[in-house]
Amino acid sequence: MAPTIRDIARVAGVSVATASKGLNGKGRMRPETRERIVQTARDLGFRPNRNARSLTSGRTYTVGLLTRNGYGRFTPALLGGVEDALSADTCSLLLCDARRDAVRERHYIDALTARRVDGLIVTGRETDPAPRVMRDLPFPVVYAYTVSADPADTSVTVDDEHGGRLAVRQLTRYGCRRIAHLTGPPSYAAVRDRVTGARAALADEGLDLPDSRVVYGPFSEEMGFTQVRRLLEREPEIDGIFCGNDQIARGAADGLAAMGRRVPEDVSLVGFDNWTLLAASTRPALASVDMNLYRLGRVVGETLLASIDGTVTPGISRLPCSIAVRASCPAPTGDDPVWTSDAPLVPDA
Amino acid sequence: MAPTIRDIARVAGVSVATASKGLNGKGRMRPETRERIVQTARDLGFRPNRNARSLTSGRTYTVGLLTRNGYGRFTPALLGGVEDALSADTCSLLLCDARRDAVRERHYIDALTARRVDGLIVTGRETDPAPRVMRDLPFPVVYAYTVSADPADTSVTVDDEHGGRLAVRQLTRYGCRRIAHLTGPPSYAAVRDRVTGARAALADEGLDLPDSRVVYGPFSEEMGFTQVRRLLEREPEIDGIFCGNDQIARGAADGLAAMGRRVPEDVSLVGFDNWTLLAASTRPALASVDMNLYRLGRVVGETLLASIDGTVTPGISRLPCSIAVRASCPAPTGDDPVWTSDAPLVPDA
Repeated sequence: MAPTIRDIARVAGVSVATASKGLNGKGRMRPETRERIVQTARDLGFRPNRNARSLTSGRTYTVGLLTRNGYGRFTPALLGGVEDALSADTCSLLLCDARRDAVRERHYIDALTARRVDGLIVTGRETDPAPRVMRDLPFPVVYAYTVSADPADTSVTVDDEHGGRLAVRQLTRYGCRRIAHLTGPPSYAAVRDRVTGARAALADEGLDLPDSRVVYGPFSEEMGFTQVRRLLEREPEIDGIFCGNDQIARGAADGLAAMGRRVPEDVSLVGFDNWTLLAASTRPALASVDMNLYRLGRVVGETLLASIDGTVTPGISRLPCSIAVRASCPAPTGDDPVWTSDAPLVPDA
Repeated sequence: MAPTIRDIARVAGVSVATASKGLNGKGRMRPETRERIVQTARDLGFRPNRNARSLTSGRTYTVGLLTRNGYGRFTPALLGGVEDALSADTCSLLLCDARRDAVRERHYIDALTARRVDGLIVTGRETDPAPRVMRDLPFPVVYAYTVSADPADTSVTVDDEHGGRLAVRQLTRYGCRRIAHLTGPPSYAAVRDRVTGARAALADEGLDLPDSRVVYGPFSEEMGFTQVRRLLEREPEIDGIFCGNDQIARGAADGLAAMGRRVPEDVSLVGFDNWTLLAASTRPALASVDMNLYRLGRVVGETLLASIDGTVTPGISRLPCSIAVRASCPAPTGDDPVWTSDAPLVPDA
């Protein structure tokens, strides 16, 4: 049996009320008495009941993390940042996965409410505005990566437009002038935002990205492998390709090798996600935009703690990306790799 | 403000004690009274405080999940299974990551203890016996994937020897007779167990796996790519390779293609992990052993619930693997793919 406050009082020879005050640093008593109580608690291996404490503080020091559609490849890095931010407040994370099911989502929200969580983080695999979880919850909610369609809510996500700019700037710095874009389905906001950023960065250089050089398809290696061949048969003068994720870039690298085109000399490649496991294993290794998900997680955690303390910041915050420079689009000789990652990266599994 | 039991009592015109009994289905009262109390609670949107309930039941309906070294690629599938098993008991998961740091681990164990969790799941990236988390914890502990070095503890892990047998049986069924093994560092128990299983399956067929055909190295594509060439230069008669993970197999497939060897006709390949994202994108797609981590998570969750209920099963349980058959080592024509996965697979991100 775990020792209780009664055991401490008995062993220390004081009343339960005095033992409690002694442990909590409250009340008036002789320093020797307080020291004896604290030492007794230590000797007996007493651990305060956090749950009982929450009944008086009004807080449970727990935060829910609800993912709307599974623990994806992005979740681990995000989780690490959230955990580090919350640990400053000794908050714990209660995890639940709604699996694209509204009934499950409702069930979990009810369960978290019954547990009196201090706050909730809602995440998901897409950055597209999504319905808010529920009206009038008795705790603050922060949307992470996914964003709420309601502007009164607080969302923290990635600046995909900035990511698109970084990718194209890396290609133009290396010397590419005829740039194409192989990417995912245009139904995703992230896909459209990256195209916008790519076009803006090209416009800065007096270049453009005509529709004929933008190819949409599944976010897969197969797409990169087959589409890079069709693209170069159609427009053989292309010298740089911005790929919408690292899987497409990996397929494109393999496709270019099969066609006898050299990377980066003939065609340079920049991917997106900086998924080290894939990017570093590509031949040659892939330069890739990094969404800094660990940092995103930290900001989400800090934003939620501020909301719990009463400082709510409605609207959507978009955090900038960085780029990991590798051999598929290296930094120009004698030039520092300016746009390398500026946030600690959590290693892939 | 969330409605309280006092609000319900006032609106329903009963005492607080009667309202409480009415909601909990206790005490003697007229059915109309009970119905009125329940309806009032519903109308006001009353939600019982789960934390208060735990003070009387002695349970908190929370379970800790401590990972010793990060949320790896394996965690999502495992988590899904654990969550499904625990949901039968409406348990919630408190998540923490010790990040290979004994001080962090101790801190989290103390925090979970202070929160009075009903039980703890300890996971990690290796199957090697590891030190138990702590002596004399006031709740049951189940080790998942990782195993405790103490035989009095309960551990549920993968039967890597069985996985090795499955891989080799798939190669011999396809017709391979001179089989090699490219795998990870022999310091891992999983690596050694898979070699043992591979040798046992070959012995069943009167074949062997001499040391010259077993190559250890990092679990990386680069390893597979470079070592497959050296192996085949040394022993050109090899017709099947069992790879210790899908990254090595991917590298080996690309290496064989670069050498002009056909997969599976000249050399067949079987990987390990069935990491769909990588295995299905390999050219040709990789046959791969599946550790059924979702099912492992379910068994872990069920084992923990049984321990909480008082039925403790000390020792190490090893769950069998299955195999996903794909083009790199297909099923013989006219033969059913017997060893396909027999558990629902959670898709990769």
